[in-house]
Amino acid sequence: MAIHGGAGTILKANMTDEKEMLYKNSLREALEEGWELIQQGKSATDAVVKAVEILENNPLFNAGKGSVFTNSGKHEMDASVMEGKYLNAGAVSSVSNIKNPVLLAKVIMDNSDFVYLSGKGAQEFADKHKLVFEKDEYFFDQFRYDQYSNALKNDKTMLDHTVIDESENDGDKEKKFGTVGAVALDKDGNLAAATSTGGLTNKKYGRVGDSPLIGSGTYANNKTCAVSCTGEGEYFIRAVCAYDVSALMEYGKLSLEDACEEIVNRKLVSLKGEGGLIAIDKNCNIAMPFNSKGMYRAFIKSGQKPEISIYRD
Amino acid sequence: MAIHGGAGTILKANMTDEKEMLYKNSLREALEEGWELIQQGKSATDAVVKAVEILENNPLFNAGKGSVFTNSGKHEMDASVMEGKYLNAGAVSSVSNIKNPVLLAKVIMDNSDFVYLSGKGAQEFADKHKLVFEKDEYFFDQFRYDQYSNALKNDKTMLDHTVIDESENDGDKEKKFGTVGAVALDKDGNLAAATSTGGLTNKKYGRVGDSPLIGSGTYANNKTCAVSCTGEGEYFIRAVCAYDVSALMEYGKLSLEDACEEIVNRKLVSLKGEGGLIAIDKNCNIAMPFNSKGMYRAFIKSGQKPEISIYRD
Repeated sequence: MAIHGGAGTILKANMTDEKEMLYKNSLREALEEGWELIQQGKSATDAVVKAVEILENNPLFNAGKGSVFTNSGKHEMDASVMEGKYLNAGAVSSVSNIKNPVLLAKVIMDNSDFVYLSGKGAQEFADKHKLVFEKDEYFFDQFRYDQYSNALKNDKTMLDHTVIDESENDGDKEKKFGTVGAVALDKDGNLAAATSTGGLTNKKYGRVGDSPLIGSGTYANNKTCAVSCTGEGEYFIRAVCAYDVSALMEYGKLSLEDACEEIVNRKLVSLKGEGGLIAIDKNCNIAMPFNSKGMYRAFIKSGQKPEISIYRD
Repeated sequence: MAIHGGAGTILKANMTDEKEMLYKNSLREALEEGWELIQQGKSATDAVVKAVEILENNPLFNAGKGSVFTNSGKHEMDASVMEGKYLNAGAVSSVSNIKNPVLLAKVIMDNSDFVYLSGKGAQEFADKHKLVFEKDEYFFDQFRYDQYSNALKNDKTMLDHTVIDESENDGDKEKKFGTVGAVALDKDGNLAAATSTGGLTNKKYGRVGDSPLIGSGTYANNKTCAVSCTGEGEYFIRAVCAYDVSALMEYGKLSLEDACEEIVNRKLVSLKGEGGLIAIDKNCNIAMPFNSKGMYRAFIKSGQKPEISIYRD
């Protein structure tokens, strides 16, 4: 099982030891709670949804509670989940006040004829299925608000999203692609993936990124692998990234590692797209490539200790 | 160049000669107007957008003016466009009152840092870029309204979308997957694809299908092919259909025809998904496979006459 908490310009120079420990402990907690379910014989789907739920509840990450502010001062969240056995999937975009968008994606997968719901309609569906709603205050975070006010002032629509030259990186510690995700293989050989995001600080026009898009931000297929992406969503959409890892394995006969390398360090780089992904295959190989400065990430395998990383090695 | 006006349970038994002629003439008009641009040396993108725009303006097809009613009696439309040279793309979902959603998708592709906009935010963007808006009355059609009232009465949420046993097909002539689309190859060797839809009659919960999703409903890549899909969107999303044709060609070394056959008549059938697609490759081969009873479709090649079909041959 592997998880991520976003990629981007994450530099050791901008991080205190205390903050680094906070991030690492948060990743460890989410990984271990998901992993616990796998060990109990629960499904990969249950495990990835649990890990993402915990990351959504943590204000450190841009998803759920920690979601950034849109241009109009709201929180609009996206999430998706897919399981590899029957290619079932659920996705949701542009929802507000839902405590855990990943749980909504799972309920859509399990209880709807549809795969992808959005906006107010998706909230009606959530209400019908008794998902937990939270008031705006739940999602309020002073740091996020300052980030938003600053972005508004400078009209930096894509603050979290722009590749910043290091020399210009004047102490803004949050230039990262805020997304969380998880992939897992369970004891029955089933693969699953889930992704959730609060989008871009100061985003406009109902922009939707790759996180809720099956094939772009999230994909799982028992024949090949499970993938969750994080990065500049527009490039991940145009490259159909998550599914492309699977297609390279299935049709191109590449290993998981080679397929991930091809997508993240060649295809995305050729499009000038920044970010990374986590992936696990049916033989429990794990890859966590990224072409940005860092990516919050962690993984665990049976009989081994969790490994948690932030920067390049 | 090829176009489609949707697939589904389209039976000759339910069609009058007059109506058949109406559909065929409408397809011919859209194809010829798009083709005219190709002959003038314009881009494949211009041609597919023009053909889809004309189909959107025709009340016979479920897109633009002819869009069906949602559960709340509104029109919510989706569209996308992609060009194969640099993998540029634009997409829009859940917009109301936009005369031509495909033009909005094109403006997003050309003038936005984003790829995919949705809902009210997308409409703000459209307003800023002076897209044409129409009042609700423009989209009103008595036939569509009767279809909606009937669906509401019977709580048939997915009327247009359900696979109906022929014996139950009691004269309802509109059990089709309402989508329009176009694919083209231009004189410079560039490929493009565009898709547009008014969604499902009586749809709820802000459901989004495959039409606005790059990789699922629309894809174009000069290395391989351009694809536009029509059918039960949920299956096309889970199978990442449009991109899968391209991946089978690029990584699996299949011909366009074999790749389309694999997707439409094996992969989709194994998921029990109904529909079809149109595709063109860089060598101007054209495929228009479908696993439903019929698909409104037409194509033309240089120096040849247009060919227009509805049913299986």
